[in-house]
Amino acid sequence: MIIDSHGHFTTTPAGHQEFRAGQLAALADPSLLVPAAPSISDDAIRESIEGNQLKLLRERGGDLMIFSPRAAGMEHHIPDVATAQAWAGECNDLIARVVGLFPEHFAGVCQLPQTPDGPLDGVVAELRRCVETMSFVGCNLNPDPSGGFWTSKPLTDEYWFPLYEAMVELDVPAMIHVSSSCNPSVHALGAHYLNADTSAFMQLLEGDLFERFPTLRFVIPHGGGAVPYHWGRYRGLAMRMGRPDPSELFRNVFFDTCVYHQPGIDLLLRVIDADNVLFASEMIGAVRGADPATGVPWDDTKHYVDRAELTEEQRHKIFEANVRRVYPRLDAQLTAAGR
Amino acid sequence: MIIDSHGHFTTTPAGHQEFRAGQLAALADPSLLVPAAPSISDDAIRESIEGNQLKLLRERGGDLMIFSPRAAGMEHHIPDVATAQAWAGECNDLIARVVGLFPEHFAGVCQLPQTPDGPLDGVVAELRRCVETMSFVGCNLNPDPSGGFWTSKPLTDEYWFPLYEAMVELDVPAMIHVSSSCNPSVHALGAHYLNADTSAFMQLLEGDLFERFPTLRFVIPHGGGAVPYHWGRYRGLAMRMGRPDPSELFRNVFFDTCVYHQPGIDLLLRVIDADNVLFASEMIGAVRGADPATGVPWDDTKHYVDRAELTEEQRHKIFEANVRRVYPRLDAQLTAAGR
Repeated sequence: MIIDSHGHFTTTPAGHQEFRAGQLAALADPSLLVPAAPSISDDAIRESIEGNQLKLLRERGGDLMIFSPRAAGMEHHIPDVATAQAWAGECNDLIARVVGLFPEHFAGVCQLPQTPDGPLDGVVAELRRCVETMSFVGCNLNPDPSGGFWTSKPLTDEYWFPLYEAMVELDVPAMIHVSSSCNPSVHALGAHYLNADTSAFMQLLEGDLFERFPTLRFVIPHGGGAVPYHWGRYRGLAMRMGRPDPSELFRNVFFDTCVYHQPGIDLLLRVIDADNVLFASEMIGAVRGADPATGVPWDDTKHYVDRAELTEEQRHKIFEANVRRVYPRLDAQLTAAGR
Repeated sequence: MIIDSHGHFTTTPAGHQEFRAGQLAALADPSLLVPAAPSISDDAIRESIEGNQLKLLRERGGDLMIFSPRAAGMEHHIPDVATAQAWAGECNDLIARVVGLFPEHFAGVCQLPQTPDGPLDGVVAELRRCVETMSFVGCNLNPDPSGGFWTSKPLTDEYWFPLYEAMVELDVPAMIHVSSSCNPSVHALGAHYLNADTSAFMQLLEGDLFERFPTLRFVIPHGGGAVPYHWGRYRGLAMRMGRPDPSELFRNVFFDTCVYHQPGIDLLLRVIDADNVLFASEMIGAVRGADPATGVPWDDTKHYVDRAELTEEQRHKIFEANVRRVYPRLDAQLTAAGR
């Protein structure tokens, strides 16, 4: 079984973004009404999914995708808590509908209603709602709700602990994933995403978070940002700082395979143990189209993993076993369905 | 000949940092006098260099190092222009003395007196002073003087053009290098440095800077941040954005070999043409000590380059020819000395 652990609903029916536009308009002009929930038909959802994510998943040999709202659309930089709450709720409800329509092919991961340095009680409540009432299996956690200015506390700060306590209790992991960049010096897809992966890993290396939360689990996407490429740097820095070797973090931290060329995947799998790599493509995401030199779609990461030097056991871990281990609620659902 | 293109004077005699401390104290308390230039003897400089950078350079088989002030010490986030000017002047004078004492082994690259969004006339003046009166061969350019908040304009913005005009006229490159991080969420050595490399490359990919300045040259250190590891991502993003292939930037942009393990160097040299890689170690810099598993010092990048799959011609380019091409004033000095 092949599980793609990182997909976003980037092709939502039109009403969804219209709701968001109306919400932002009402925030800017209090004389406007907050829009009602959009009316999106099951057929519209089916059409979008079948023509995009599910089509590619099938074509490329995948069986199931862990699916969450569009990352760039989370827009946690908008400081109004009620707006964040309504928007995350709407986005997550849409994911739940996708999962309900295609239960064999999608599992839900939720957007959290974060705001810059905002309260976390609503964040925890939305996580609980998604996991307990809609069978979601994880969440996406934004380490920089400011959108490119990094004004929030590091992930090791106690500010985040209420969320971690709920994650541990519910036994769900978080994928560390920023949203759009409000900073013209930091391009969202070409800099902010990768920088966030790198910064998050270094924050974890600097602290003792997993001593306090030994079962907390984070997935750092996009192949761990710059980390595997600079693995010697991290090992040397950890030594110089008197910290444990960074590989100690691999009890709790996992990287995915959203790296869009063969040499990058080869480096990832040469440096990081197969126990800590989750298969993922992030399709349909940042990088669309195919390499004109080879015809291989950039984000067809299965193509690269298939060609990497791996044993069958390692391949099974990356494509399935690790994902089930990191997302135990998904594993339970699959097991209950005889898969 | 083996040229290490990236070294900082991280082991300055005590008086140098005392001057800086006095300068910052006077800035905080106007009743205090701005300190006079420190009295540092030639012997103190000789002792520091011979026991550190020159010792390692010799032990590892290097011949010459391109040498600049300590990167983390530039501290461009201090907004006072006069302070920045005096500090850069002092740092650069010290580099000039190192070069004067060891002309066969060191060539100077200057710190610029940048401030967040500050005027560039003094920056240009200091560049001219260093190049025209002290024979420096390049400069370090900080794309984020704020120190981790990225409040400045992208490198493609016309804010920077007066500096580029001087660089083109003087025919000197800039190494893109941030300084310390003031942001507790972004560790200087483990995140900020690499993120800056990545962000800078993406800024250049978004713009047409080199159409306006076709002979302008930038070195992006630390192996290009996350870029080579994610090369497919950059190619795919460029296509999606309707931009030229990112390899087009390699007329003007070069990466160095400050990547501290064999798999990272192998990836760099597999992905990036040997014409665009400059040998560098950044010693004595961020990462000190040796890998306990192999005994190889983390920053002995020559060890890794020696073991990479390269032809003799490629090796010659990386160790010498590219550096002389990117730093033509260094090449002229070496040629004049019969080297």
